[in-house]
Amino acid sequence: MKLGEKLNVVTSNEGKYREYRKKLSKYTEVEMLNIGYPEIQTDFLEEVVEFGLEQLEGYKPILIDDSGLFIDDLQGFPGVYSAYVMNTLGCEGILKLMHDVENRKAEFLCIIGLIDENDEKILFRGRSRGMITEEQKGDEGFGYDPIFKPKGEERTFAQMSTSEKNSYSHRGKAVDNLIKAVKGDLEIQ
Amino acid sequence: MKLGEKLNVVTSNEGKYREYRKKLSKYTEVEMLNIGYPEIQTDFLEEVVEFGLEQLEGYKPILIDDSGLFIDDLQGFPGVYSAYVMNTLGCEGILKLMHDVENRKAEFLCIIGLIDENDEKILFRGRSRGMITEEQKGDEGFGYDPIFKPKGEERTFAQMSTSEKNSYSHRGKAVDNLIKAVKGDLEIQ
Repeated sequence: MKLGEKLNVVTSNEGKYREYRKKLSKYTEVEMLNIGYPEIQTDFLEEVVEFGLEQLEGYKPILIDDSGLFIDDLQGFPGVYSAYVMNTLGCEGILKLMHDVENRKAEFLCIIGLIDENDEKILFRGRSRGMITEEQKGDEGFGYDPIFKPKGEERTFAQMSTSEKNSYSHRGKAVDNLIKAVKGDLEIQ
Repeated sequence: MKLGEKLNVVTSNEGKYREYRKKLSKYTEVEMLNIGYPEIQTDFLEEVVEFGLEQLEGYKPILIDDSGLFIDDLQGFPGVYSAYVMNTLGCEGILKLMHDVENRKAEFLCIIGLIDENDEKILFRGRSRGMITEEQKGDEGFGYDPIFKPKGEERTFAQMSTSEKNSYSHRGKAVDNLIKAVKGDLEIQ
């Protein structure tokens, strides 16, 4: 994989852009590209990202990502539709669905998609296993952070500082895999 | 609007195809076209259908549709993602989310999209208002039928025969609007 002189990070989220710039500016110039692109309905984040890359070929080299919370006992719900479910049901709705449910295991997944200098399409994955709490805790972060406790921790993501959360988080791990690939430390299939 | 000699109904659902053929064969030859096409993530069925028509232009004249259950108290959830939510949470999950909720109003919406003989893109809408029941009732139909009671009825869709359900249903009404347009009885904007 080869990053080239510039990389367009396609997002409307300033915070996300800054995170990528911070991590990648050692390797390339990172620019924010705030344009919308269609996301397809599918059960798999990988397919959302692959379809998105196809729509955005004219803007390469580009980076996009998509992520979601997958709850074991709910057959992966809210999954690919995590943002929509946050806007409609919110954390409250998830806790209602998990009422009296014993198996509270869940995972956050993040898929980064990239078209590099050589026109290659490459996906990177990051995963964070954990549990859905019984009630909301903490004010940091966003989305499902107040109800997700990563494995081996007693606090939710919303009770951690950003840098603490990043050390556990799905997006942090996906970016780490990308950087390994830039350095040539990761075999890409 | 002009239907021409043939219309391709894009669906993988034999029952849906037969319903369209039954209603439209008086006006045109109806063929089933079992091909997949990408559906985008959006809060609006209309946008799913419009995007779908664009993907399928090569197969015109075509008809596609999309439908969903929109629950007032859940900000329209499950809406555009009704099929996915049925596969993950099912009717049980919806009843759990509606536990202790007083406002049980909901509606089924169906949007039919068509590219006609003159290459015009036209959408037709059908709506069925009703209530979410407290428990599942009936074995007919499919999807959310056991928990949806149309306005003015004491029975759920799952307690009705197909033809009874069609007289109330969102898809039935959308097809009726299409037929009015074919006959020239409906002004299209």
